[in-house]
Amino acid sequence: MRFIKGHGTENDFVLLPDLPEAGFTPALVRALCDRRAGLGADGVLRVGRDGDGWFMDYRNADGSVAEMCGNGARVFARYLVDAGLESASAFVLGTRAGTCPVEVHPDGDVTVHMGPVSLRGGSVATVSTVDYPGTVVDVGNPHLVCVLDGGLDELDLAVPPGHDGTVFPNGVNVEFAVPDGPDRVRMRVHERGVGETRSCGTGTVAVAAAVLGGTGKLTVHVPGGIVHVTIDDHGSTLTGPAEFVARGELDLAWWKAM
Amino acid sequence: MRFIKGHGTENDFVLLPDLPEAGFTPALVRALCDRRAGLGADGVLRVGRDGDGWFMDYRNADGSVAEMCGNGARVFARYLVDAGLESASAFVLGTRAGTCPVEVHPDGDVTVHMGPVSLRGGSVATVSTVDYPGTVVDVGNPHLVCVLDGGLDELDLAVPPGHDGTVFPNGVNVEFAVPDGPDRVRMRVHERGVGETRSCGTGTVAVAAAVLGGTGKLTVHVPGGIVHVTIDDHGSTLTGPAEFVARGELDLAWWKAM
Repeated sequence: MRFIKGHGTENDFVLLPDLPEAGFTPALVRALCDRRAGLGADGVLRVGRDGDGWFMDYRNADGSVAEMCGNGARVFARYLVDAGLESASAFVLGTRAGTCPVEVHPDGDVTVHMGPVSLRGGSVATVSTVDYPGTVVDVGNPHLVCVLDGGLDELDLAVPPGHDGTVFPNGVNVEFAVPDGPDRVRMRVHERGVGETRSCGTGTVAVAAAVLGGTGKLTVHVPGGIVHVTIDDHGSTLTGPAEFVARGELDLAWWKAM
Repeated sequence: MRFIKGHGTENDFVLLPDLPEAGFTPALVRALCDRRAGLGADGVLRVGRDGDGWFMDYRNADGSVAEMCGNGARVFARYLVDAGLESASAFVLGTRAGTCPVEVHPDGDVTVHMGPVSLRGGSVATVSTVDYPGTVVDVGNPHLVCVLDGGLDELDLAVPPGHDGTVFPNGVNVEFAVPDGPDRVRMRVHERGVGETRSCGTGTVAVAAAVLGGTGKLTVHVPGGIVHVTIDDHGSTLTGPAEFVARGELDLAWWKAM
């Protein structure tokens, strides 16, 4: 069983180009993503077909189904082009959240269309007993974006930031952003159910929407790298790197033990 | 550049069979062991030559040189046999700590000779303000083994256990063990400078020496699996699994960026 290991701004994935859908079990995903007994990853991308097109079949490390993953879509799209499976540089991925237009650039960066973004008023995040006012942003999933003057590196995000359960009954992804020159911010993110991460695709879009307050472009430094976000009247795009580390085959005895 | 990813009781390694010694730089090791931007591992095993024999060239994830690694030696030895590079089932590995006899069994388990063990009296480890009396054990590196009646799973090892700095001026690996039937214990380990780990080869030997109080055999359950330890007048042996997850090639662009 062939695999590719890669990452988008250090959100990392095992990509399986040959696995039939029936074999894509939660147990296999958990075993692959185990960072010591497996290959290790934040999630697994199975290359599927959607009629005449591609289907990005994504599961989180815990085996659960995810609708969409902006960083994973970059890795998925670049793989298709690099492997010669897709001859166009701009094409459409099928996902559980609907179709997702992507564009693979000559330098290897990939643009992913991330859909509509809505600002939904204000709320408050609490870190180490300090309240930070923020902007509620809906990117298909819920975000709370707090813009700070500084002190980003000192925030203790080892525990989930406090939030208003009436505004976010299903939890919230919390972003903290500090302006870093014109059209540029640095940010950190705490993902609900996960913890602080090196990168969150929808989180960068949420930060751009909150900072811009409307349409425009923003360069976003996440801990795992740099991405570029645009917000326009039709939706949003996320452009960033997709990098490959290794490729090969899963050990046969390991595979049979699944 | 070919690689193999494997683990011994969930202490995991990237093995490089083809890398010349001059290319085995700390920067390469750190990049390979990065769990999101690299392949991810606790350390890297380079297959080296030592005269007519094998040399296990081991580095920790931070790039530092390590003298010996019991779990790594199992993975290294089994690779040599499985790959057909070594035709004997019992042979000797060269390491920075001297020669290390190993034996690869038909079921894939591997026995590694771990050298002499010395009991050095008593000391105390402190966890969550509770003092635990323990036995000081020297397995080439310093250990403090605390045998408990129960409560193993409840211990908070997220912070390093307190220890007596006059007894352990360079820090100490602390093991907690609970008897689990005759000749059998369950244990957890906090490795100095690392944190709690899934497995520690010298730690299992230290626990066996402390529990046996002399020569004998002990089956040890670590969080990452099961190993068997013998202590005799000549030294100690550690027998346990060596498992492979995947093999392949490092991405050329990634490799060139090193």
